[in-house]
Amino acid sequence: MKNILMLIEYDGTNYSGWQQQPNARTIQGELEKALRILTGEDIRINGAGRTDAKVHARGQAANFYTSSTIPPERFSKALNSILPEDVAIVSSEEVSAAFHARFSAVGKKYAYHIYRGASRSPLLRNYSLHVSYDLDLGIMREASKLLMGTHDFAGFMAAGSSVQDTVRTIYQIDIASKDNSLWITFEGNGFLYNMVRIMVGTLLEIGRGTMDSLQLKGILRDKARDLAGPTAQPQGLYLVKVFYPLTR
Amino acid sequence: MKNILMLIEYDGTNYSGWQQQPNARTIQGELEKALRILTGEDIRINGAGRTDAKVHARGQAANFYTSSTIPPERFSKALNSILPEDVAIVSSEEVSAAFHARFSAVGKKYAYHIYRGASRSPLLRNYSLHVSYDLDLGIMREASKLLMGTHDFAGFMAAGSSVQDTVRTIYQIDIASKDNSLWITFEGNGFLYNMVRIMVGTLLEIGRGTMDSLQLKGILRDKARDLAGPTAQPQGLYLVKVFYPLTR
Repeated sequence: MKNILMLIEYDGTNYSGWQQQPNARTIQGELEKALRILTGEDIRINGAGRTDAKVHARGQAANFYTSSTIPPERFSKALNSILPEDVAIVSSEEVSAAFHARFSAVGKKYAYHIYRGASRSPLLRNYSLHVSYDLDLGIMREASKLLMGTHDFAGFMAAGSSVQDTVRTIYQIDIASKDNSLWITFEGNGFLYNMVRIMVGTLLEIGRGTMDSLQLKGILRDKARDLAGPTAQPQGLYLVKVFYPLTR
Repeated sequence: MKNILMLIEYDGTNYSGWQQQPNARTIQGELEKALRILTGEDIRINGAGRTDAKVHARGQAANFYTSSTIPPERFSKALNSILPEDVAIVSSEEVSAAFHARFSAVGKKYAYHIYRGASRSPLLRNYSLHVSYDLDLGIMREASKLLMGTHDFAGFMAAGSSVQDTVRTIYQIDIASKDNSLWITFEGNGFLYNMVRIMVGTLLEIGRGTMDSLQLKGILRDKARDLAGPTAQPQGLYLVKVFYPLTR
């Protein structure tokens, strides 16, 4: 048996998210279907992050075990000829038997695209959040520094989530503005359910002046989801990269 | 009667192009339908450029006459609330009675997006041409200079086109490379049918070494479509801007 790691790009617009579920079109489902066609095996894949419906990925990672004699590097090309056009394998390689795309990950990078044009953008409708109100980027950058570092992010987790350990470390938050586009990128050792989208929603409230840094500190201190801003829509979110140790 | 000029952005993916035609979804058709709902009038609009199926626009222009009392600047917002999400009016304003979006235009700017990643990109599949072969950008830039200026572009017009005067002036061709993206932009006083896509197809042949500058000169000299490169697919093409005299 070989353990194969794939990097995956997808347009999440027409999917119910990553995770396999009955009667719904999912990325995992499409990949497992393509692997069945290619290898004849019933393969279950492990994804690094369970992206939600309409969330995109440039560098999702997933691994699977196979007895196939297809050379590991050739899986990408072979799968791309079977997969629908909104999913593609960027690369594939053999990894050690113990490697697991989710449990071996040491960090992730997400990006969120905000479009600031005066009117909604047809070309970016599935790939960004349209924000037409004014934003103070300086204040947003100041606030983002409060989120960096190690904190209990329970206040930034979707209500009803059952995760016990809600302490995470954010290494970097970057807010880059160009023309009418604002990209907020997050790098951290892990993210709770909806955490990136709630951080974006909260930073936007701060940027428009309806929340302030003191309230942001309060969310971290009181760990209460209802204190944070709204969950920003999924369409602007991208899973950019999953980090692994050099030996894998 | 007022004459209203609109700037329009659209995602051409799900359209049979700009021009109104029976039993097909077109941009012009959607706009005229929205104007009918908004004004109660049967309005025919004049577009500056008849973009093909799957071609996009960031700055298409169109004008129409109306007896409506809606303030000219308010048409954009009012129409955006009616139009499908893949079409939007960027702005609207009143222009002189003689203004015609097509006949008053003094120039146009098009952009073509080429994606050069090793594997096809799901996120860019409807918005770029995927090219995985090597390209010599220096040679392409040299060749593009031969296209600038005033020439008879009959060799760069779709076969079967009935236009008589095939002389056009290209003011500028720019080839910009960033990461895996290559953007080729064209500014000129006008473009023949499929001219931009045939120029892109020809520049790509030159960039990969299957055609050379001498052959490019030959196309201009002999005015023969069959000497030029293939018509690049519509998905990468954007109508960026239509130029008008300052007084309009």
